[in-house]
Amino acid sequence: MQTKERARKPAISPLRNEDYAGWYQSVVAGADLAEMAHVRGCMVIKPWGYGIWSQIQTHLDRMIRDTGHENAYFPLFIPVSYLQKEADHVKGFAKEMAVVTHHRLEERDGKLVPAAPLTEPLVVRPTSETIIGESMHQWVKSYRDLPMLLNQWANVVRWEMRPRVFLRTTEFLWQEGHTAHATSEEAFEETVKMHRVYQTFAEQWCAIPVIPGEKPPSERFPGAERSLTIEAMMQDGKALQAGTSHFLGQNFARAADISFSDRDGSVSHAWTTSWGLSTRMIGAIVMTHGDDDGLRVPPRISPEHLVIVPLERDGPDPAVTAFCEELAQRVQGKRFGPGVEVRVRIDARLHRSVDKKWQWIRRGAPLLVEVGPREVATRSLPVRVRSNVDEVRAIDADVLVEHIGDLLDEIHDAYYAEADARLDAGLRRDITDWKSFEAFFANDGAGFVVAPWCGKDECERQAAELGVTIRCIPFERGGDPGVCVICGERHGDSVIFGRSY
Amino acid sequence: MQTKERARKPAISPLRNEDYAGWYQSVVAGADLAEMAHVRGCMVIKPWGYGIWSQIQTHLDRMIRDTGHENAYFPLFIPVSYLQKEADHVKGFAKEMAVVTHHRLEERDGKLVPAAPLTEPLVVRPTSETIIGESMHQWVKSYRDLPMLLNQWANVVRWEMRPRVFLRTTEFLWQEGHTAHATSEEAFEETVKMHRVYQTFAEQWCAIPVIPGEKPPSERFPGAERSLTIEAMMQDGKALQAGTSHFLGQNFARAADISFSDRDGSVSHAWTTSWGLSTRMIGAIVMTHGDDDGLRVPPRISPEHLVIVPLERDGPDPAVTAFCEELAQRVQGKRFGPGVEVRVRIDARLHRSVDKKWQWIRRGAPLLVEVGPREVATRSLPVRVRSNVDEVRAIDADVLVEHIGDLLDEIHDAYYAEADARLDAGLRRDITDWKSFEAFFANDGAGFVVAPWCGKDECERQAAELGVTIRCIPFERGGDPGVCVICGERHGDSVIFGRSY
Repeated sequence: MQTKERARKPAISPLRNEDYAGWYQSVVAGADLAEMAHVRGCMVIKPWGYGIWSQIQTHLDRMIRDTGHENAYFPLFIPVSYLQKEADHVKGFAKEMAVVTHHRLEERDGKLVPAAPLTEPLVVRPTSETIIGESMHQWVKSYRDLPMLLNQWANVVRWEMRPRVFLRTTEFLWQEGHTAHATSEEAFEETVKMHRVYQTFAEQWCAIPVIPGEKPPSERFPGAERSLTIEAMMQDGKALQAGTSHFLGQNFARAADISFSDRDGSVSHAWTTSWGLSTRMIGAIVMTHGDDDGLRVPPRISPEHLVIVPLERDGPDPAVTAFCEELAQRVQGKRFGPGVEVRVRIDARLHRSVDKKWQWIRRGAPLLVEVGPREVATRSLPVRVRSNVDEVRAIDADVLVEHIGDLLDEIHDAYYAEADARLDAGLRRDITDWKSFEAFFANDGAGFVVAPWCGKDECERQAAELGVTIRCIPFERGGDPGVCVICGERHGDSVIFGRSY
Repeated sequence: MQTKERARKPAISPLRNEDYAGWYQSVVAGADLAEMAHVRGCMVIKPWGYGIWSQIQTHLDRMIRDTGHENAYFPLFIPVSYLQKEADHVKGFAKEMAVVTHHRLEERDGKLVPAAPLTEPLVVRPTSETIIGESMHQWVKSYRDLPMLLNQWANVVRWEMRPRVFLRTTEFLWQEGHTAHATSEEAFEETVKMHRVYQTFAEQWCAIPVIPGEKPPSERFPGAERSLTIEAMMQDGKALQAGTSHFLGQNFARAADISFSDRDGSVSHAWTTSWGLSTRMIGAIVMTHGDDDGLRVPPRISPEHLVIVPLERDGPDPAVTAFCEELAQRVQGKRFGPGVEVRVRIDARLHRSVDKKWQWIRRGAPLLVEVGPREVATRSLPVRVRSNVDEVRAIDADVLVEHIGDLLDEIHDAYYAEADARLDAGLRRDITDWKSFEAFFANDGAGFVVAPWCGKDECERQAAELGVTIRCIPFERGGDPGVCVICGERHGDSVIFGRSY
């Protein structure tokens, strides 16, 4: 039995199709994910948002360790001289960074002012290749020490002029993997392996289908020889780079002198990689799965799976409380998907139950059930399935306990299928010349253009004038080589063009 | 059957009784825990050290969540004006801090120099009361929003003039709890609850017995009304403050204007608490459990429990490999203590097996077994039990699989009992006047003096001249009230005096 509620006002304003950017901000706020701090460009990640990040950490960390990496922790501060060692890296990064110049505050005329200047200024890490390189220089001596497979969970800072919560913040949280290898082949294999780990994570955990591919030279990480990316398509047709994996060649190893003596006694520089995935992923989740009632959290990374709201009009009702607790206890620890444990929350806060209900809808908890005396009597529960928020299924309590995993799998699959269909529909393969290319994007064209690019900078720049970049040279979902869609003259491989976050 | 190896050279130099500070540095280095970075005062936490921190995080985080707290994340940077709001807090903290004054680096004459000065300097958080207070000011409106129970896992920075790895580093990792309550009683209850959580964690997880107590006014957290502490005794008799919990009264709530309307419509400031435990705990573990062969990790927080080193003299031996894998698989996931899963590592690195063996001894993995063709044939395994490193027990493989949990419990109990006996023996209750007090500490007296203190600052200052502080007014293991051990005149309660880290 399913019931549909009568037409009602959406919980989020503005709507997606009215003002996408405004909708995004409203969902982030309405779902209690985060808010911008008074500290310019920084964000406060609220418990529900941080709970999603913790789930991302838990599952991605396991994948990173299962592929042989170990976690470690390196300093927050990088002496400016470290950055100077790798010229290309400097060019790309040494711009907007927080610079520490003093190590004391002193009171003068009742005001706290910086004192004790540092002889060498420090930057707050924007990424850690240079500082981890300094340790690898110490630790790597022989081929026996390779591969060195490290990962770090950390905060990083890149001073943002136009911050947007989760998407572009001055401080953000991420993991950054850093590895060193004896050969170029092995290092590139590692780059690909972690790229595929990101793809698996995005698709199987976050229910976000992505296009795996390689960045064109202009979009490479500063100092990298090759940069692999997973590109997701948001609901407005724009691209979001959700995780990158870089083959650094020997560039950073030369700069930091990471060298090893091989079996034959010869000494060579190591080959290194780096790869990262950040709190930006939460922005991708919002813009992939959110609807006009708020967020819909993919079950496998949801902090809670079933939220039970007791309906206790005149204070606590022992029968309702007992029923909720028994239900929670029976459901807790059941498993779904690739072994995820079901988490249950009974929301017994003092707020009005209708407010609590809508809060959990906006937050996007996968399953929500309100339990009052009638539900206790009939044991038939009105289960609200967040994938289709106005659908309330009447499910017998025992059946819910037995099948909660199936329900959660169903929601995951629905989210993935919806996003996958949108991605496929948004891949425009019918745009084959500059005129239609220009017309498509000039009209705020929503989607990715899959078309050949000759490889020349000048064509890339021509697209850039429309605010369009080459998102990647795709490994999947690409097209055939052919005549460049921009110059219409030279041949090249198929690439993905799009506007991006 | 047990065998003892012949007398040998200890793995750590200098020995504990030769040079305790040097021994500490050697254990931290020899156990691959961490090293000081080239960035002044900062440390690099290596995989084994970070593995211990991850275990601390996992188990302490569960205890924090089980007591109703939620994790969140607040900005790294604090505007100087926030600090200025709470005068006492400023006095205590606004000294040695990293100050960000610019947000850009620019190249001038081939050198990167700070550019783009900030209108208001930012400090890198030394602790987050002021910045979290800013959010609580926004979030707390009504009594229904209380209690607000938050926790954050983060890095913090306090510029250290004399850094020592784990004990005092410019950057360190910690958790900081911050809560707001409607009443003074409830806030103080929370302060005590988390104080007891720290005691339980130290004792039951880290096998470190502690003295719970209250700090004297002079040692309170800046801005706190009461500070509770757990004090541990290191092997040299010095005290280490292992975790503190502060009752902040309404001081920070007034400074940040955290106020709420109560049931009767009246508006009041909230009552807040904060409490933290840091990577310093790893220093406490080293100095509590380390021996002259390195670290001994308490099993419940050890990254690995059983390390298997295959003895494969002429390259991989399929029978040995298969045996090791089967053993690992059978042991993995068994449980011990309060439900900790047994973790196994097969160390198949290319290094010499004798080097690997000693590395794991120095690292302090609880159980170590070397497996060669003979062990495969007899299935009798030489199990080295790290609590008594020269003891190798011959244990049948099946018996090991069956009883590995018992072995690990035995090690935990042995570590705790050893430390507990040392703490009890180190509590000097026989020092009852200033002359013997002075003589004891002047001769580098190792241990805590349990004696009455009248409560006067002047007596406290007199002790301070010997480098001795009041560690706490103990809730356990204290003594009777009586005449002050320092002035010999006024009466007071029994306190713990000691030198400290």
